[in-house]
Amino acid sequence: MSFNGVAVENGLKHNGEKNGIYQNSSNHQPHRMTYEEEFSQNYPEVDNLDGVRYPDGSVRLRNPNIELMDQDILYHLALGSGSHDLVEMFGDVKFVCMGGTPKRMEQFAYNIMAEIGHKLPCGTTLQDISHFSYRYSMYKVGPVLSISHGMGIPSVGILLHEVIKLMYHAKVRDPVFFRIGTCGGIGHEGGTVIISEEVVDGALRNVLELTVLGKTLQRPAKLDRRLARELKAMGDPEDPYDTVTGKTMCTYDFYEGQGRLDGAFCDFTENDKMEYLESIHKSGVVNIEMESLAFAALTHHAGIKAAVICVTLLDRLKGDQVLAPKEVLDEWQQRPTKLVSRHIKRYLQMKGRLSLDGHGSIAVKSPRRFKLVQQESETYD
Amino acid sequence: MSFNGVAVENGLKHNGEKNGIYQNSSNHQPHRMTYEEEFSQNYPEVDNLDGVRYPDGSVRLRNPNIELMDQDILYHLALGSGSHDLVEMFGDVKFVCMGGTPKRMEQFAYNIMAEIGHKLPCGTTLQDISHFSYRYSMYKVGPVLSISHGMGIPSVGILLHEVIKLMYHAKVRDPVFFRIGTCGGIGHEGGTVIISEEVVDGALRNVLELTVLGKTLQRPAKLDRRLARELKAMGDPEDPYDTVTGKTMCTYDFYEGQGRLDGAFCDFTENDKMEYLESIHKSGVVNIEMESLAFAALTHHAGIKAAVICVTLLDRLKGDQVLAPKEVLDEWQQRPTKLVSRHIKRYLQMKGRLSLDGHGSIAVKSPRRFKLVQQESETYD
Repeated sequence: MSFNGVAVENGLKHNGEKNGIYQNSSNHQPHRMTYEEEFSQNYPEVDNLDGVRYPDGSVRLRNPNIELMDQDILYHLALGSGSHDLVEMFGDVKFVCMGGTPKRMEQFAYNIMAEIGHKLPCGTTLQDISHFSYRYSMYKVGPVLSISHGMGIPSVGILLHEVIKLMYHAKVRDPVFFRIGTCGGIGHEGGTVIISEEVVDGALRNVLELTVLGKTLQRPAKLDRRLARELKAMGDPEDPYDTVTGKTMCTYDFYEGQGRLDGAFCDFTENDKMEYLESIHKSGVVNIEMESLAFAALTHHAGIKAAVICVTLLDRLKGDQVLAPKEVLDEWQQRPTKLVSRHIKRYLQMKGRLSLDGHGSIAVKSPRRFKLVQQESETYD
Repeated sequence: MSFNGVAVENGLKHNGEKNGIYQNSSNHQPHRMTYEEEFSQNYPEVDNLDGVRYPDGSVRLRNPNIELMDQDILYHLALGSGSHDLVEMFGDVKFVCMGGTPKRMEQFAYNIMAEIGHKLPCGTTLQDISHFSYRYSMYKVGPVLSISHGMGIPSVGILLHEVIKLMYHAKVRDPVFFRIGTCGGIGHEGGTVIISEEVVDGALRNVLELTVLGKTLQRPAKLDRRLARELKAMGDPEDPYDTVTGKTMCTYDFYEGQGRLDGAFCDFTENDKMEYLESIHKSGVVNIEMESLAFAALTHHAGIKAAVICVTLLDRLKGDQVLAPKEVLDEWQQRPTKLVSRHIKRYLQMKGRLSLDGHGSIAVKSPRRFKLVQQESETYD
């Protein structure tokens, strides 16, 4: 089973050659658009396609040094191009899903396994591929990678450098990256799903600023608008919560940096805070989190389609502390996961790669009897 | 057993009152220095002592909002002032040790337990106090907290806000914070222990820049020089490696931000890189890592004594990739830990609080027979 060289549905299509057919998402009437046209429309800053893709569509690095290296150690992933056969291990990857904690991304891996009917060989279970890094956790379920990125721009930045290099070493073609996270809402109550259309820093600038060799650079922090629209369309009208798109603010700090009154330090008043939150609300900010700026800037620089989908844990216009009970928070955190699962499932369905008869690694004939056997087994002395 | 109200050896001494005796570290001849004098010498930026200490020396927050709150949830630690008796749980803390990964900080907790002879009640073991946050791990061994801080300034920043608040809620008096980490050396080979005297950002500025309510602020990033000297003195001449002090650079990125040629992106040449590294070397930088700036700035702002002790994993003047084998790296990572352990042990020794007859939670009469019983037990069918 290979997911190489396949196209994003309703998106660009290419399979070993550069030209393809673009299908409009609303009416499925095909009209021609070259891969280059499609690409340059999405990524005007990327000088040319050759910089980020090989002719077969596989990821090319904007760093000439890597292909000259004897081996490349992906230090924080516990993987290496000399020690591991990365094409064999990761060549079939299509979707890379990232989120804050190892636990959430392990859960996501099991969820997506059930959703897409991915089967593991009898007697096997998922393994944390990056366990020995003690930094990030990584799970693989067929064409889906599920990776924890920790908290903050530096943490997700290190991961993205290494995962983009992993895509290159594994010769993955046109991967799609998702960040599935939590955030504070601005004018949106807890439990709302927010798909980022645009990302800005704490001063409302649409760039990631970085210091390289002592000089300050700015990288455009852009996400794929079409992908955001496709994800929005995956929202079920039956869902008992809103799924919206909007502008996301990304900060370097959770307390003072997000105008919270309840950090160890606070030099401003409730009024200052509300004035600030109202002002960013007016300029279109709908949520605040801590990773999207690096996520957007680094994927964009690599010419990789990416989307950020977060659930709000509270409305910051109403308070600072998250007060919803654990069970409620747990259910909320499933919401962005569900949206991304639907998208991946639909993609695989359209590609005829979805297996509906399996539910993960254990083949269950009768769920009732399965449960019974488990229970009997547990009490057997 | 309480470690409240005790003083740092050779440092300020106070016990419910503000005046105390200062002992010079070199010759131990006492001379009088008031608590305020001592403090203002160490922390000239902090306007007055009243802002960061209560009369009994316990931590006071530079945020008037917290004491007015009904409860304060330390969200990323899975603790709360309304739900937990934080004085009962943490009132005896004196040292807070932080490092990157949960695994390293769990190891540190068990090491320090053996070092200081801390005994756990029979049938108990250490528990990750923050397990349910799925963010950080926290272990407590008597007066020592051992906490993982993840990677990067935002991650350690969130933790520091909450740990400083924890110190306040637990009424801890004059805590001392350590960061035990890894770094790239500049002109120092792998395995060298570096104690930071000063911390600068990627543009060599000695401040943490943060955006608060849309405005850019700068906080001085200062560490306790006396503490750094005391730690340096803990270096054993018999140690088969150097222990040095110097200027630490702290960056927001591991690859481009530290002038590495082996990230997913690289727009500069080997020559550009070497020129840059040589230039920062000339301006006194001896190592680069990713957390010290926030660590120094936030502890300094809270008037908390702090030190950063890192081991170099390589000399960046000689390369970018860490190539030492795992066993070597594991041994290197023990080195800063040993230094901090010696310091803590010496402190407790001077206070007469060190128990040398215990080695952690299990009382062992004969290590040989103990091992034998374990082995027999394992093979018993």
